[in-house]
Amino acid sequence: MTDLFDSSDAVRTADPLRFARSVTFDQPLKLEHGGELPEVTVAYETYGELNSAGDNAILLCHALSGDSHVASHGDDDLPGWWEIMVGPGKHIDTNRWFVICPNILGGCRGSTGPNSLNPRTGRRYGSEFPLITVGDIVSVQRMLVEHLGIRRLRAVVGGSLGGHMALTWGVRHSDAVRGIVAIATSPRLTSQALAFDIVGRNAIRSDPDFFDGQYYEKGKTPADGLAIARMLGHITYLSRESMMQKFDAHRLQPRHLQTQFETRFSVGSYLAHQGDKFVERFDANSYITLTMAMDLFDLGSSPDRLAESLRESRCRWLLLSYTSDWLFPPFQSRQIVNALLSNNQPVSYCDVRSECGHDAFLLPNELPLYGGMVQAFLENLDGTARRDVTENGNSEAVHAAPAAEANSSGNEPAAIGAPALEDRFKTDRCAVGRNGTGADIAVRSSPTTGNVEQSMFHHRRLDYDLILNLIPENSAVLDLGCGTGGLLARLAARGHQRLVGIELDEQAILACVRRGLDVVHADLNDGLQAFGDAQFDIVVLSQTLQAVRDVERLVAEMLRVGKRAIVSFPNFAHQPLRRQLAEQGRAPRVLPMQGYHWYNSPDVRFLSIADFEEFCRERAIRIHQRVAIDTQQRREVHEDANLLADVAIFVMSAK
Amino acid sequence: MTDLFDSSDAVRTADPLRFARSVTFDQPLKLEHGGELPEVTVAYETYGELNSAGDNAILLCHALSGDSHVASHGDDDLPGWWEIMVGPGKHIDTNRWFVICPNILGGCRGSTGPNSLNPRTGRRYGSEFPLITVGDIVSVQRMLVEHLGIRRLRAVVGGSLGGHMALTWGVRHSDAVRGIVAIATSPRLTSQALAFDIVGRNAIRSDPDFFDGQYYEKGKTPADGLAIARMLGHITYLSRESMMQKFDAHRLQPRHLQTQFETRFSVGSYLAHQGDKFVERFDANSYITLTMAMDLFDLGSSPDRLAESLRESRCRWLLLSYTSDWLFPPFQSRQIVNALLSNNQPVSYCDVRSECGHDAFLLPNELPLYGGMVQAFLENLDGTARRDVTENGNSEAVHAAPAAEANSSGNEPAAIGAPALEDRFKTDRCAVGRNGTGADIAVRSSPTTGNVEQSMFHHRRLDYDLILNLIPENSAVLDLGCGTGGLLARLAARGHQRLVGIELDEQAILACVRRGLDVVHADLNDGLQAFGDAQFDIVVLSQTLQAVRDVERLVAEMLRVGKRAIVSFPNFAHQPLRRQLAEQGRAPRVLPMQGYHWYNSPDVRFLSIADFEEFCRERAIRIHQRVAIDTQQRREVHEDANLLADVAIFVMSAK
Repeated sequence: MTDLFDSSDAVRTADPLRFARSVTFDQPLKLEHGGELPEVTVAYETYGELNSAGDNAILLCHALSGDSHVASHGDDDLPGWWEIMVGPGKHIDTNRWFVICPNILGGCRGSTGPNSLNPRTGRRYGSEFPLITVGDIVSVQRMLVEHLGIRRLRAVVGGSLGGHMALTWGVRHSDAVRGIVAIATSPRLTSQALAFDIVGRNAIRSDPDFFDGQYYEKGKTPADGLAIARMLGHITYLSRESMMQKFDAHRLQPRHLQTQFETRFSVGSYLAHQGDKFVERFDANSYITLTMAMDLFDLGSSPDRLAESLRESRCRWLLLSYTSDWLFPPFQSRQIVNALLSNNQPVSYCDVRSECGHDAFLLPNELPLYGGMVQAFLENLDGTARRDVTENGNSEAVHAAPAAEANSSGNEPAAIGAPALEDRFKTDRCAVGRNGTGADIAVRSSPTTGNVEQSMFHHRRLDYDLILNLIPENSAVLDLGCGTGGLLARLAARGHQRLVGIELDEQAILACVRRGLDVVHADLNDGLQAFGDAQFDIVVLSQTLQAVRDVERLVAEMLRVGKRAIVSFPNFAHQPLRRQLAEQGRAPRVLPMQGYHWYNSPDVRFLSIADFEEFCRERAIRIHQRVAIDTQQRREVHEDANLLADVAIFVMSAK
Repeated sequence: MTDLFDSSDAVRTADPLRFARSVTFDQPLKLEHGGELPEVTVAYETYGELNSAGDNAILLCHALSGDSHVASHGDDDLPGWWEIMVGPGKHIDTNRWFVICPNILGGCRGSTGPNSLNPRTGRRYGSEFPLITVGDIVSVQRMLVEHLGIRRLRAVVGGSLGGHMALTWGVRHSDAVRGIVAIATSPRLTSQALAFDIVGRNAIRSDPDFFDGQYYEKGKTPADGLAIARMLGHITYLSRESMMQKFDAHRLQPRHLQTQFETRFSVGSYLAHQGDKFVERFDANSYITLTMAMDLFDLGSSPDRLAESLRESRCRWLLLSYTSDWLFPPFQSRQIVNALLSNNQPVSYCDVRSECGHDAFLLPNELPLYGGMVQAFLENLDGTARRDVTENGNSEAVHAAPAAEANSSGNEPAAIGAPALEDRFKTDRCAVGRNGTGADIAVRSSPTTGNVEQSMFHHRRLDYDLILNLIPENSAVLDLGCGTGGLLARLAARGHQRLVGIELDEQAILACVRRGLDVVHADLNDGLQAFGDAQFDIVVLSQTLQAVRDVERLVAEMLRVGKRAIVSFPNFAHQPLRRQLAEQGRAPRVLPMQGYHWYNSPDVRFLSIADFEEFCRERAIRIHQRVAIDTQQRREVHEDANLLADVAIFVMSAK
């Protein structure tokens, strides 16, 4: 969906598809919306080797304008559309995985599409090519996978329209795939995105050289219409910010081009260039066919229908969106995530901070983060993953984690609403090219991001230990503000089956995914509406209550979603704090060792044990247990807790 | 720029322009980019009567696809494009104001444009129509205004491209206009908006019926290209949210239309309808000419250049943007506002919360707010305005204000970061039509919105009285979190010349504009970067410090922008609060009378007088004066202030 051949003009003398093979299935293919194709050819490329167990195969699904050439096959080969991500030692490591990338049905780069010969007529299909769906595209992909002798894919990975394919694998073919990675995608297009596709198709069909789709025999192509559709598409793949960065400084200094299109403004010459180049390599009928398949894709317009669509899936899921993507906006990925959560299905999700718009998933800017998540997710789909840990008693992955945690030295609390960490991996801003820098940037992000784990008291570990004791064996646990997963990893090691974390910080989410935990990017201030009533046995909020603005709502939500809720917080009426105010006239500093003061603390709510007990009493919230602690002495406080304890833990339920 | 004739198909049998008059200027018009027009005709409509002083004339500037028919001339007339806003008793009250609306140069609805006859050739201009600018369009508007015998307009009002005209009046012709109302506009287009225009023009020029612009003689029009440009434009006038509301529920149930364009989806049939209807009434060459004028409009790409462009203006300014407008996004209006602020020019600004996208300014949804602002701004441009009050000693407008304030009874603090008031005036969501409801909705918004004024202590008036005493006569004052303008109105009554307020709440801003105050919509958490060093004598932050997250930054900014800063806040070490914690073990409640508790207070920072003094000491902030108060006793506290005062006021400066 991006500008695949933007910066590689010079090397295009070679055939980018020279490593592609193809297979033809000569059985008629029945199509979802009626009709059939008498035969189907699939062009595909593979990378790496299928192992003897046949369980290391990953299917990559390209977007609207992609093809089978996802990456180069060696130094003398042309780069592919996801060169930064796929290759030996890269995030999708072809030394390890057997990667398959087919050109999709309806395309124009080797697989059967409108520009193919119809064996029944001897002519190219043109407008006689039938209406196809993403489901049809995926059916053909499955035929290829079976042809290659693979019974179960490790994962299907795709972005944008390719994400629709990945979703469809997860929904319809979850017997044949362990994990789904769906990037920058949606349950269905927004009406805005749909509208752009419609205008693009209208531009193609209005071109007098379109001849109702039968232009092949006329020796013409609706090049103007296709170029205009492509220009329009291009605007939607970029963010407003990235366009400003590219064009604002030199608005009236266009590149000089041989083109019939307007080139007064630099952005105009860019669009003209994109449009002109696209018509050299893409077929207008394929553009119509594939955008229509995308526009018809629909997993459901309501949360209930979407959850219903996903219900039978047995895969693990990783969803990624990009904050500046307005074509497939993050809220749409969140809809899918919420549906999976409501179904108790295993899912991780991150909304990657990016200025690069929809194209972000093809660009190196945030690659360490999103590439790292994909890499970790793929790795944890096998026997070393947490889920298998809990089943097999193999705790290797879990044991590795606390060590990393002990390295943490920052002072960033796992508070919701706290500003996320600076992105230390940012290199440039929305680079247009897709070549060159990818491999260099594809380093693992720093393990120091474990600092998110750090508690406000240097006593989170103690807090966790005590909370752990309050959580019944095998209970289903939702951990709000889970940080890098310290508590969840301990629960996993103890054998809990159903564990979900919510976290706001991207790097902490990455750390969780590396541990094989299911963690979802969300702001607790937005509530827990993804979850159903009593969906978890226990909902935990550890040392975070005091950083929440709408305490009433969050506590009510915890009590709705969890059969029990466990809350821990610092006690503002602890004796030394009382003295600070009473004797010194100074606002009590709950976080004295962390460098926090009244003017910069992440805390925005101050409460005592007595305050919280009154809060519960007024709302008829039932308190099952209270653990009051003196963390300095590392002991439980049984009398005069409101005076002598600095932290309290409550186990509660709605009446 | 919106769909002007959407819901009035039935009555279009009448000529919408039958009340238009025209005047022809037969002197050649020199154009900004070279070339000239041998003569210029302007079609225009007027409403109301010019008064004997000739000082009640308001010029309205239409957007891209508008015309002179801004409103109906009576019950038997067709509605105009801003029917909801303009008419007897409406926000732009034609009982009071003499309203002039010309069709703009380059248009196709009566004024000289590409479809006019070129007197030098006897043929229509077509592509020979020269490149024109917004400056040229405004020059012709000024010729009309002078022709009508008006030496000085009360105001120029315009939105979108019409906003560019209003800005140009303010920049180039501020001798001839008192006030500028620029709505949903920008210093120049974003590269994204520019790109959409370019694609639209490419679609028109690629249409084989375009004939390089000379289609008139061929008896053809590039209808497909123009329709596609219009469809594309339409997407950009709506927000994603409003498109979801219109189309998502019935995606596959299109209206049946006679059209050659795609109608499979409901949004497609809508776009086809808009495209087809537009070509009936609009000329493709005008579309190219006017979008190009808009694309070339440029007041400066950097804050400095923009400020330079605006420097000579002697007008008062009102800027309005809409939160969901992504074509002319709010940050662009803010750029203009910030430039005016940096120049010490009088400006008010509100970013109106709306889901309706760019078209919001033509829709009734938020009319009470934005219409109310326009109305109040127009009213305060004459001798009863605050600025004239301060010059003439006529304090009528100011005396009216405190009375309204006394009616306030709510408990919403003027805190930044506090959730804005519910919009009580919302009627429907992004209504497509522009007829019918306008007049009904055009009521003044409720005066109860004065509740924003209410302090956290019921003692803001006392606080204001004391702060007033600390502000030297005639000093320039910036009031941060100014509420409905209580302090500023008192200062205005005292004769201060330069007063600016910053406020987050829309209804409070409206109240300020009604008082004739200059107030700008902004969140103090975003800093004061609009202002230069030492731009004000005094910067005031009254009872708001404790609601600010980044206290350090805001205080530093106050000391940078103001020669002195005045800060007041509640003292957390006041004796009764100390007792609450020390004796009862309860978190001190600073706002006990307001129904606030630890879990829902707008306050997020707690400090004592001693804490603040230490804060200043550590930063070498000089404290010139400290006033400590016991607001219960209504007396100043001179000894043991940190124990006995509940509020403190500090006057400070950077060393």
